[in-house]
This record gives sequence, structure tokens and C-alpha cells, in this order.
Amino acid sequence: MILVLAGGVGAARFIEGLVQVVPPETITAVVNTGDDMLLHGLRISPDLDIVTCTLADLIDREQGWGIIGDTDECMSWLTKLGGPGWFKLGDRDLALHIRRTAMLGEGHTLSEVADSFRRSLGVAVRIMPMSDDPVPTHIITDAGEMHFEEYFVKNRAQNEVRGVRYVGVEEARPAPGLLELIATADAILIAPSNPVVSVGPILAIPGVRAAIMASPAPVVTVSPIVGGAAIKGPAAPLMRAVGLEVSAVGAAQAYAGMLDGIVIDEVDAGLAAQIEALGVRVAVTDTIMRGPAEKANLARVALQLAHGQPAAA
Amino acid sequence: MILVLAGGVGAARFIEGLVQVVPPETITAVVNTGDDMLLHGLRISPDLDIVTCTLADLIDREQGWGIIGDTDECMSWLTKLGGPGWFKLGDRDLALHIRRTAMLGEGHTLSEVADSFRRSLGVAVRIMPMSDDPVPTHIITDAGEMHFEEYFVKNRAQNEVRGVRYVGVEEARPAPGLLELIATADAILIAPSNPVVSVGPILAIPGVRAAIMASPAPVVTVSPIVGGAAIKGPAAPLMRAVGLEVSAVGAAQAYAGMLDGIVIDEVDAGLAAQIEALGVRVAVTDTIMRGPAEKANLARVALQLAHGQPAAA
Repeated sequence: MILVLAGGVGAARFIEGLVQVVPPETITAVVNTGDDMLLHGLRISPDLDIVTCTLADLIDREQGWGIIGDTDECMSWLTKLGGPGWFKLGDRDLALHIRRTAMLGEGHTLSEVADSFRRSLGVAVRIMPMSDDPVPTHIITDAGEMHFEEYFVKNRAQNEVRGVRYVGVEEARPAPGLLELIATADAILIAPSNPVVSVGPILAIPGVRAAIMASPAPVVTVSPIVGGAAIKGPAAPLMRAVGLEVSAVGAAQAYAGMLDGIVIDEVDAGLAAQIEALGVRVAVTDTIMRGPAEKANLARVALQLAHGQPAAA
Repeated sequence: MILVLAGGVGAARFIEGLVQVVPPETITAVVNTGDDMLLHGLRISPDLDIVTCTLADLIDREQGWGIIGDTDECMSWLTKLGGPGWFKLGDRDLALHIRRTAMLGEGHTLSEVADSFRRSLGVAVRIMPMSDDPVPTHIITDAGEMHFEEYFVKNRAQNEVRGVRYVGVEEARPAPGLLELIATADAILIAPSNPVVSVGPILAIPGVRAAIMASPAPVVTVSPIVGGAAIKGPAAPLMRAVGLEVSAVGAAQAYAGMLDGIVIDEVDAGLAAQIEALGVRVAVTDTIMRGPAEKANLARVALQLAHGQPAAA
């Protein structure tokens, strides 16, 4: 069984590669819920929805999020009625939030909702949240502390980042079964996601980091930083804020002590020696997931690295 | 000030006539919320929405409910995710339910939500719910007791009706200001709505009936029964179940003791003497509200009757 620690878009694409290489039923994605928030009274889970809808082939691939062909009738009326308009929610998209909120209100856990959704949408990969407890990621900025989505979407990442807080993480429990999955996994892959606000929250759940350190499974990541910049999203200011270099080296350092290997992009090949000096094996390949072939190659390289084989050229 | 006791479609059309005859600002609609329910975790208020959206000229006039030009993207996904599909909710329509649920969750009252919505949609008529407390109407049938919408929409009014219950009405309080409005109204008009499940719940709120009896305002209704049948909706089996004749006479008897006058349709002119024998003044006119002219005429006749003038021919 392969366990993938997943954020949103990058993780979803990486898992699209994995399902070409191993049976989807043998993959479990444990997904960041630090971006989750309550908006219009609805429970929004951006990363869970991105991973689920990407694997269901229902995602708007141009954006990386949202549902293909979605419309915004409801949203335009919500703002007409005085509701907040800064976070776009499509009509189809809203069904996920409405149904999730209703199921949680009926007493289901977020894990149960995530599993129900992926089954309803025909996804064979198992999908679970990092925790059933809310752990919102707050960004501490020059304009005050705010929810990650407020920093990223509402304020377009314009504020100066000073720190990151996983609110309530001390009391959060790992999703049911997560620690057991970590202990018994054949490989733990950390997706090319933001190490601070996507993977960071998962590792901060009490017990998760220790379980990964204790697990016999090899731990391999794919650098989300290529040529000193994030492929997508606000990784650079967030990594800097927590003292990480914005480079493939920084991506390896983010998982210091737990990482067996990292896949870096060809443009970063020159950094391999520096990373290997940290005791981390390195594979070099094209990490830009343009299409199915690149995704499958990246998954294959990551798995080979996990199992101690030399990287395919 | 004119107070209108209102259900859904018939009431909304009747008020469209009134606003042609008196300044809209002088009209208050107090609306049945017995049809309200929680579905998909959302607070649905069918009659409030019908009245508000009709007066905002946003209603789907062919159906009488729902928003003109609405789409059903969200609904089709809600059912795909396992949600109940028997109650159609359009994408624009859903914005009302989402925003209402969010505002109630933030601590606003239903009265505040209703007022906010009608202002946002540019409605000058004041709109208020009968109560801020939930008083769901249950229908007792041969198949058991069920919510009115379950009886009417889900089961298509196929069950045999044995009785009606306004659940929790003993503890419900009239909406803030309602008793004062009743006491100071120039006229109280009971819209051509279902006397059992539309107007009945309003009158059942503790204090409302007594306030109407004590008010100096004349009380006039328009019969929703024409030629022995309801113009729209399930009035016939419901009236029968509570012992009312399905006729203009039954419509007058439904408000026994509080009614000063009733407007009946020309086809029912022969019933006038029988109704007058109950001590109720009668005006006869065309009560079928085909278009603006018929609506305005009906409103004019009802107001003239309230003020003791003979009916216009």
C-alpha cells in the first residue's frame, strides 16, 4: 500500500501519475485540511475536493481547481443577497460543500464524507483527510493574522508573511486509521505540494511525524520547487517565512530527519550533491507534469527511489 | 397600513394587485412558514421566497415558484453525492437557502433575513414571517404523519389526509411587531391562500387570532375555492380533513368569527346569500388572476369590501 501525503493541485496531478503505475486501490491519499474553512455557513475543503475531482476526471484542468464546465448562478445571487464574494464557488462545486456540511451536521465525520464522495464520483484511490478535527492554517502577516485562504485568495498573497500557525493542532487527532496506514505502508510519498501549508499541517497532527519516523516504509518526496521558484502557489514567501531556502534543497530540509529520497527537476541537477550531503538520496528527472506521460514517469521515478533503485535517466 | 396574511403563489399574485392600488410601502405581508423545512442542511422557506421573488419580478411565472431562468447544476450534483432529490432547488434559488441558513447561523432571526432579502431584491412591500420560531406543518395521513412538503411534493398529495398538526405552535411567538401591526392596521386582508396549511398556521400562533379579533381593522378574504375546487394546490383534501366544505362557503367558515367580508368568484355568485347568513359581507367579481388588470381589480374589490363599500360590478 502506498500512502501519499497530499495538498491540492500538485498532489492531485502526482497521484494521476501513480494510478498509471500501480493499482489505484493500493493508493491512499491523506489530504491537507488546513485550507478548510466555513464560508456562507458551508464547510469548504479545497484540497480534498481538488484531489477527489481530479482523480474523478471532473476537474477544471485549466484552473487546477473547480469543476469542469461549472457555472456561477448561485454565487452571483449569494453576493446579491449580501454574501461574501471573494471565494468563487461554482454551482456544481457548491453541491460538494452543501452535501459535506449536511453530512457533518447529521453526525458523519469528515473521513466518512471524503470516502462517500470519492465512491460517489467513482474514484478507486482511497482519500482521507489528515484529521476529522478542524485545524485551520493561519498566516501571520504585516496586516495581522488571517486564514490561509484569506491571505492567498482574498488578499492575493500580497501581505508580507511573518509566520504560520496550525490553529488547534495540539488537540487534533489523526484521521481514524491513519497511524496504522503509516505503520504498514510499503512507501510513503510526499507529493510535490507546499511543504509549509500543504504537507506541514499533516505532519503537525500529533503522532503523525513520529509514526512516519517509526515506520519501516521509505519516505520520498518530489520537490515542488523548480529552478528556485514554486511551480504553482505561494510556496516561496511561506518557505522563506519559516526559514527554508526556496530551492530543492529547502524542499528536502523541510522534511529533515524523515526523508529517504527526493526527486528533483533536471534544472536543479546541480543541487543533487548538496542534498545527498544531508543523507537524502536524489533522483533527477523532468518533474513538470505536462501530461499523462510526464505524470507516470514522475510516479515511476519516485517509486524506484523509494525502493532504493537508481533513477531512470 | 394594510396587513396581508399570506401563503405562497395565490398570496403573491394578490399582493401584485394590491401594489397597483395602494403604495407598496403601506403593505406588510405576514407569511406562512409552516412549509419551511431543513433539506441538505439548508433552511428552505418556500412561501417567503415565493412572495419575495414574485414581488421582485424574479419568479418563474409558469411554475409560480422558483426563479426565472434558473438552472439545476447544483441539484444534479447533490443527488450524485447521495443527497435527496425530491425537492427541486435551482442554482439561483439555492443562494436564498444558503444565505438564509448562514445568516440564521450567525444569529440573525428569520424576520431579519426576510427583511434583508426583500431589500436586497428591491421589494418595497414589507415582508415578515409569521414567527421566528419553527412551526412545521405536519399532515397526518393513512401512511403516517409527515411534513407538509413531504405530503405535497414528495408524495404528490397521494396519501389520504386525516388531519393537520402545526408542530410546536404552542411555544411559538409571533414575529416581532406582528401583534402591533395587527392592532394598528387599516385593513387585514387574508390572501386567497389555503386556509388550512397557509393561513391556518399564521392564525394558530398564540396571540395572533385574539389580536385580529381585538383589532378595529376590517378583515376580508378572497376565496381560494372557485366552483368547488382549489385554483392551485391541495386545498380540497385538507379542507375536507378539517371538516370544511370545499367551497366559497367553506372558505368563509374557515375564518368564522373574525371575518367581515369575503370576495368570491362570479361562478360562485349563487353562494352569496348562504355566506351572508353567516354574518359575512360578500363581494362578487372575477377572482382568477390572469394578468395585472385582474389582479388590480381583485385588490380594489377586496379593499372596497373592507371599507364597507359595495362591490364594483
